[in-house]
Amino acid sequence: MTSLNLPPRVTVYEVGPRDGLQNDPATVSAPDKSRFIELLARAGLPVIEVTSFVRPGAIPQLSDAEDVVRDSVRLPGTRYTALVPNLRGMERLDPTRLDGIALFTAASETFSRRNTNAGIAETIDRFRPVVTQAREQGLWVRAYISTAFGCPYEGEISPGQVLQVGQELVALGVDELSVSDTIGVATPGQVLSVLDTLVPHVSVGQIALHFHDTRGTALANVLAGLQAGVATFDSSAGGLGGCPYAPGATGNLATEDLVYMLNGLGVETGVSLDGVVEASSFLATVTGHRPASRYYRAAVA
Amino acid sequence: MTSLNLPPRVTVYEVGPRDGLQNDPATVSAPDKSRFIELLARAGLPVIEVTSFVRPGAIPQLSDAEDVVRDSVRLPGTRYTALVPNLRGMERLDPTRLDGIALFTAASETFSRRNTNAGIAETIDRFRPVVTQAREQGLWVRAYISTAFGCPYEGEISPGQVLQVGQELVALGVDELSVSDTIGVATPGQVLSVLDTLVPHVSVGQIALHFHDTRGTALANVLAGLQAGVATFDSSAGGLGGCPYAPGATGNLATEDLVYMLNGLGVETGVSLDGVVEASSFLATVTGHRPASRYYRAAVA
Repeated sequence: MTSLNLPPRVTVYEVGPRDGLQNDPATVSAPDKSRFIELLARAGLPVIEVTSFVRPGAIPQLSDAEDVVRDSVRLPGTRYTALVPNLRGMERLDPTRLDGIALFTAASETFSRRNTNAGIAETIDRFRPVVTQAREQGLWVRAYISTAFGCPYEGEISPGQVLQVGQELVALGVDELSVSDTIGVATPGQVLSVLDTLVPHVSVGQIALHFHDTRGTALANVLAGLQAGVATFDSSAGGLGGCPYAPGATGNLATEDLVYMLNGLGVETGVSLDGVVEASSFLATVTGHRPASRYYRAAVA
Repeated sequence: MTSLNLPPRVTVYEVGPRDGLQNDPATVSAPDKSRFIELLARAGLPVIEVTSFVRPGAIPQLSDAEDVVRDSVRLPGTRYTALVPNLRGMERLDPTRLDGIALFTAASETFSRRNTNAGIAETIDRFRPVVTQAREQGLWVRAYISTAFGCPYEGEISPGQVLQVGQELVALGVDELSVSDTIGVATPGQVLSVLDTLVPHVSVGQIALHFHDTRGTALANVLAGLQAGVATFDSSAGGLGGCPYAPGATGNLATEDLVYMLNGLGVETGVSLDGVVEASSFLATVTGHRPASRYYRAAVA
């Protein structure tokens, strides 16, 4: 008998309000974002990344970060996080209204330079005072390692590059690494190869996986990650957020699709599938476009 | 290290011209079907199910079965099959232009009655003379066990039901069972559970898996099947064919998405991804709608 040997429980890290809306053409008002976040929390999502404190000019969709953090109802049982690019971002956030922050760097030097105007080493230097301040404020810290499975400019990325960046982040005091397939190219063997390289040096409990479903492989990659012991996966309600590098293609793995598979596998998440569909439906009425989630499309006529 | 332990080589069984077009609203002319089939063979697909000899009134899209079989170029290296529901269908086909036939039954009694107007036992009785004649004509025989992972009427289907139908088909002389997730509800643990029930009684080399990507789990299910030693998977170029039980939802697993993942896993298929995209692009110009395949959408701007 083939046994999958899966973790009994998984943390679903919801990125829709930040990563999803950041890549969505629609403009959503701060009150509608807060309502969306509340519906996600009511659906039982244990962590929600609610916004990003990037320079408002850089990502106009998220320029209302302060409003969203101030006005979102905080439910017990859900941790609320926000992306913070640098100390200026850190100074804008109210640490009493958040449980953690997320940092963003890359495994690809070219991607880092084009996306954040700074090389990898420079982004990590910028993180140092941010992590120190987060610690003083009692905030939990995760870091995204984007383009960990492939880069739109450099192509293949070696697992060694991911390890090097990951080790520097852990040395800085980061609690969790979100190893991210930014352009949705990963396949399951590659997921295991990256994890095999990371895990001797970074605890598997500190690793989250972040997949995009651009080529349909996201859930197969999750299955491989689960088999290697990873127990935190990022997803976006409704599959919110396109792929900025392939217009018309799908972006983030949909929370509905992830939870549907985990339910089927008997892996506990504490997330209500109907509740996530309700949150996605609400947002669909606001944005005017139908969620990409396959589960959603099968469930909502 | 987590090892996936995969078969080195997989047979991709292309169902687009039959299962795909049968569920597509567009009407495609026989010459365009023949061209589509030729492009699929040129892409290296080792088996193509080209049409169905059902009663022409039942599925108007496939009423040109004789024309398609007569006029399709037969390339060496590709086996050509057609679905045959009964002896009448068998009498319509030219056995010198085909390598095999496919039969269709179900694991769900209700689905069988509603879909073919006959219970499972009755469909299997009908197959008996068909298999005998196919054998005499030197034709290979596969049988679909539809609704093997769930039924739109009965809900859950026990692995024992799949085993019972499978054993009767093998006793009849069927060469291959295509264990099919007709409504796209399967998750990977369920795939292993069905295989664990089947494999002590049916050789794993006789089992093909047929997934629909209705809830995004198709490739995760393929991964589980591969890990259990299955080496034949059905797919449809472009993801052709909707899900008749959930309007607007995705149907068959796309050949492009399957081959993309298998390439990434280092599993040989002999199929050219570019070639499949070319076949899907040709058909898209004929039907006027964009393929659902995620790989296709990411690759073709």
